[in-house]
This record gives sequence, C-alpha cells and structure tokens, in this order.
Amino acid sequence: MKATRYEGNKTFSVIETEIENPKKGEVRIKVAYSGVCGTDVHIYHGMMDKRVAMPQTIGHEMSGTIDAVGAGVTGYAVGDKVVVRPLDDTKVKPSDKGFNHICEELNFIGIDSPGSMQQYWNVPAFTLHKLKENTDLKLAALIEPLSVATHDVRLSGLVAGETAVVLGGGPIGLLVAMVAKEVGAKVIISEVNPIRIAKAKELGFDAVSPIDVDLVEYVHGKTEGRKADVVFEVAGVQPALDVMTEVAGIRGRILMVAIHGEKKPIDLFKFFWKELKLIGARVYEKEDYEKSIALITANELPFEDMITDVQPLSNIQQVFENIDKNPDGLKVLMDCQL
Amino acid sequence: MKATRYEGNKTFSVIETEIENPKKGEVRIKVAYSGVCGTDVHIYHGMMDKRVAMPQTIGHEMSGTIDAVGAGVTGYAVGDKVVVRPLDDTKVKPSDKGFNHICEELNFIGIDSPGSMQQYWNVPAFTLHKLKENTDLKLAALIEPLSVATHDVRLSGLVAGETAVVLGGGPIGLLVAMVAKEVGAKVIISEVNPIRIAKAKELGFDAVSPIDVDLVEYVHGKTEGRKADVVFEVAGVQPALDVMTEVAGIRGRILMVAIHGEKKPIDLFKFFWKELKLIGARVYEKEDYEKSIALITANELPFEDMITDVQPLSNIQQVFENIDKNPDGLKVLMDCQL
Repeated sequence: MKATRYEGNKTFSVIETEIENPKKGEVRIKVAYSGVCGTDVHIYHGMMDKRVAMPQTIGHEMSGTIDAVGAGVTGYAVGDKVVVRPLDDTKVKPSDKGFNHICEELNFIGIDSPGSMQQYWNVPAFTLHKLKENTDLKLAALIEPLSVATHDVRLSGLVAGETAVVLGGGPIGLLVAMVAKEVGAKVIISEVNPIRIAKAKELGFDAVSPIDVDLVEYVHGKTEGRKADVVFEVAGVQPALDVMTEVAGIRGRILMVAIHGEKKPIDLFKFFWKELKLIGARVYEKEDYEKSIALITANELPFEDMITDVQPLSNIQQVFENIDKNPDGLKVLMDCQL
Repeated sequence: MKATRYEGNKTFSVIETEIENPKKGEVRIKVAYSGVCGTDVHIYHGMMDKRVAMPQTIGHEMSGTIDAVGAGVTGYAVGDKVVVRPLDDTKVKPSDKGFNHICEELNFIGIDSPGSMQQYWNVPAFTLHKLKENTDLKLAALIEPLSVATHDVRLSGLVAGETAVVLGGGPIGLLVAMVAKEVGAKVIISEVNPIRIAKAKELGFDAVSPIDVDLVEYVHGKTEGRKADVVFEVAGVQPALDVMTEVAGIRGRILMVAIHGEKKPIDLFKFFWKELKLIGARVYEKEDYEKSIALITANELPFEDMITDVQPLSNIQQVFENIDKNPDGLKVLMDCQL
C-alpha cells in the first residue's frame, strides 16, 4: 500500500509498505479522502517538530470504509462508511474531570501517532463514527473540521436571534459561520482577503473587510447598538484580539478558536466593564461529531463549495507547496487511493 | 450638616452645608458608616479625575437609617435601617440586554454623582435594600463590597467540593474567599504581604505566598492534580495574570475581579489547551445584595475582623493619607455622624 510520511524540513516521502492487520480492538480503514488541516500545514512548516516523531504519517481529517475488523470489535463490518474522531483518551485520569477530549495525556491520532494520509489506516474502534450508506465520502472528509465548528458554537451558547461575528473567513471561520447561521443567528464575517470575502458573500454571508470599514460601527449599525452576542476569534492575529473586545456587546461571549502560541496583549478592562466571557475551545466531543454528521448527511449547507481542490495522495509534496503559494483556497482533499 | 468633598490633588475638604429635602422618589438617609473602597483610593490618587466632577462627595459603601421620605415613595419609613445599591440605571436601553447593573449609561452613585461620605444623603428609593432592625450598621457597611464577592462567586458557578484559588488577599480577596468557603469550596489564598497572609490564616484560610512556594505545585498537591476549578484574579498584577492560566485545571473558570487599566499579556494558548473560561465581573445585581444581606444578618462569617479601623468622617483627609501609608489594613470605615 501507499503511505506518506512527514520527514521534517518541509519534506514528505511517499513509500510502499505492507498492509497491516488490525490488532485487537482495532479496525483497518481503506481511507477515501484526507483533508489538509491548518495543523498539518504547521507540521509541514516544522512548527511542531518537537511533538511529531519523524518520520510520521500525519492527517486526521478523513473519510473511508472499513476494510478489516480486528478481534473484539463489535458493531462494525467490512464496507461500512466511517469517519474517525482522532482522540485516543485511553490514558484519561480523574483529574481530567471527565473532559476526556482534552485530557492531559491525550493522544491526538495523526499528530502524536500515525494518521490518515495513507491508503490503509488502523485505528481503535472507539474512535469510529458510522456514516449512512449514501454519504458522500468527499463531504464526509469535512466532518472533522466541521466538528471543530459545532464544538465552538455549542460552547458559545449561541441561540437563534443572536448576532455572531466571525473574525477570519478561512475554512474554519466559514464552517463556524455556517453552523452559527444554521442555529438561527445573524452572522457577520470579518476577513481581510478580498477573494475570501467574495467567497463568503457567494456562500450567502454578510462579509466585510475591517480594513475598509470600521467593524465595530458596522456591527453596531446592524444590531441597533447591541453589537455581537458572540465573537469567534478564528483569525489568530493581534488586530482580531484588539477588535474582539470592542465588537462584543454587554455580556458578550468570545470564543477563542485560533491558536496563539505566545502571550498576547488583551484588553481586560473591557472584560470587566461589559462582563465579557472568553471561552477556550479545543477539538470536539462525541456530540459535536454527531451534530456534524447530521449536517453533512442532510447536506443542506454549502459544504461542496468548501472543497477547492482534490489531489492524489501521491502528490502530497506538491499539495503542501501549493497551499503555501495560494492563500485563497479553502479545503484541499487528497484521494488516498491514488 | 457635615459633608466632605474630593477637590482633586489628593485633597478632601470638610464643609458645613444645608440638609436638603428628598425629591419625589427619593429618601434622605442619615448615613451611619461609609467604608473606603479601592475605587475611592483611586479617586484620591487622581486616577479618575476625568470621570469625577470636582468638587465631589464620593463614597458608596455605606449603611444608615432613613431620615425623611420623599413624595411617591412607598415601603420605607423614617428609622428604617438601609443600605444603598449605588447603581442608577434609569438610562437603560434595549441594547443593554437587560443587564441593567452594567448598562452603558449607568450612573454609579458616589462616583458619577454625590456619594455617602456626608452626614445626610439623598438617594432614589429604588437603590435601597431594607435591613432587619437588629442589624449591626458597622457590619452593614460591608454589604456593598461583600456584594462584589457574592456576584463574583455566583458568576463563577462555584459549587461545593470544588477548589477556588484567590489571587490577592486584600479586602475583596478575603470577602471572595469567605463567600467561596460558605458555598462549600476548598479555598486557597495566594498573597505576597506577610501581614495579610497571617490575617488570612487567622480567618481560617489556607494562605500561601507565591514567592515562597510554587503556587501551581502547591495547588496541584492539594487537589490530586485537578488544580483550581475556579481562580479569582483579585491582585491586579502581571504575576497573577501569568499564574492564573497555570493554576487553573481543565475547564477551569477564571474570574477577572481586578481592574486592569491597560492591555496585558495573556496566555491564550492555555485557554485553548485546557478550555479555560475568563469571566469578567463588575459590581453586583439585586440578588447579590440579597445574598450579602442574608450573610451579614446571619453574622456567621468573620466579618468583624475585616474592619481594621473606624474614624470620624471629619478626619477624611487623614484617613486617606493613612491608607496610603499602611498597606496592611483591611476595611476602614468612617462614622458619618462624627
């Protein structure tokens, strides 16, 4: 079978290797599609070399079908369409307080152990979610990033009639916006890239550039002065951190979706003055996957527009190089059988 | 009657002035005691000269008895013991979303309009909370700062069995600690001043200096690795902001009680990694006052130990000068009839 490996130094190898039988409690998945996550790009850039044991097969946004079932696995059969929730929480402790998805010794499959960017992939059966037979496996590869969005929106407590401002209109920002809109909220996307603004508008969103308009005034005008009930900080840049506390109304909730590697200046006075809440959100829980699977199965949101390229897995090196060259694209999938 | 006025430039005047009749909807209070709040000290230091219209009678932590009842006021009679919740929310707007206590055009009585550091004080009747006849008016002057604590603890969602770490063992920190303990939480106070540490221990708290011990390890050891369920940041200094994200366990809630006038570096990665929440809290709501009044009426907590000095109102200049000289004291009250 074909497998890819991150070798460090912005380099992937493509190798031929043996297909392995699933161990007890595992299944073997014939991987259909593997999407490229921002985290994968970070890995490619060498930003996570301390964490990733090289050479390593990465990848965690995927869809596939079960190819073999290991001993002791029940409820799954060869041919079942599945996605993997790539969180191995077998080392959970009482001090994790039941929040297994972010337990201290979490093994994130595809970062801390081998991932989906290969033709066949063995995973513990407890990571699986079964899909309906008629599920489109391309769309299903969006279930993992969509679950980040359903998790963020759920933790925000966003309800119908509220206004959500999404700072950053990349793949996760757009998925958050879709889920927020589906909840019944009014959604405003703030994004600086004109091509991404155009894309967001195409998808039916109110999208503006904070360079062209005063975002706080814009949101103020659109909400009769209430401003944002929820702000999703997905941009990961200081101007977003500066505006998030301004654009949030009284008792506004700010979801910290972006990953900030360094300490950043935050306007704590605004947290005091307006009784704002900052809510950290990481990965997803089982119910977020279930919500995402329901959304993908219903296929009533413009998920297809999120997929801007599909490439053979064997082109992995070029795929990552192209992502660096093209900041306008959204989700790139790799066909793991090619 | 005697009244005091902040004149700017670290100066208070004490004047003789006419006793005024309460207007429609108002009552006149014979002020018993007026406590000195950190905010009053900020005003004295000139930090709020842009906001405070000088000369201004300040003060908002108080107790007293009704001396005269204006037209249209029902439910109150001369001689009733009362405290004032000093929030005039008459300019509330729909965009305040019902959070009247922090409405955009809030008039904070005692900062934005005349306060309690005078012998008689006219206030709108809607700001009043009636006390039981046998209430100790010295302790009652603690109801306002205690309500900051009951508000903080309520917004934190702290429940029995959880661990609360209070960063800062000054008056508000100790009141927060008392309320947290009353809720049934395990409380650890972090404070650098040895005299305040000793005081906290006298009051029955586990109190440590983060200079002498590694606070994170200490809390880790006391909680079987769970660390803090709730952190109250009452210190207002960068080391507290640095440690708050370390000492909080998974899904920990951090209450921002301190007022940070400038943007401060915050470890947002920890918010992401442990799904922390930062919760801004300001003043109090009606139910927080009711809770505080119940606590003061029951008098089962060591409130008396909080009052470290009682001075005549006519000594106001010296009172503020002494507070600057003595960082070890807790709550100073002024007897407004002297």
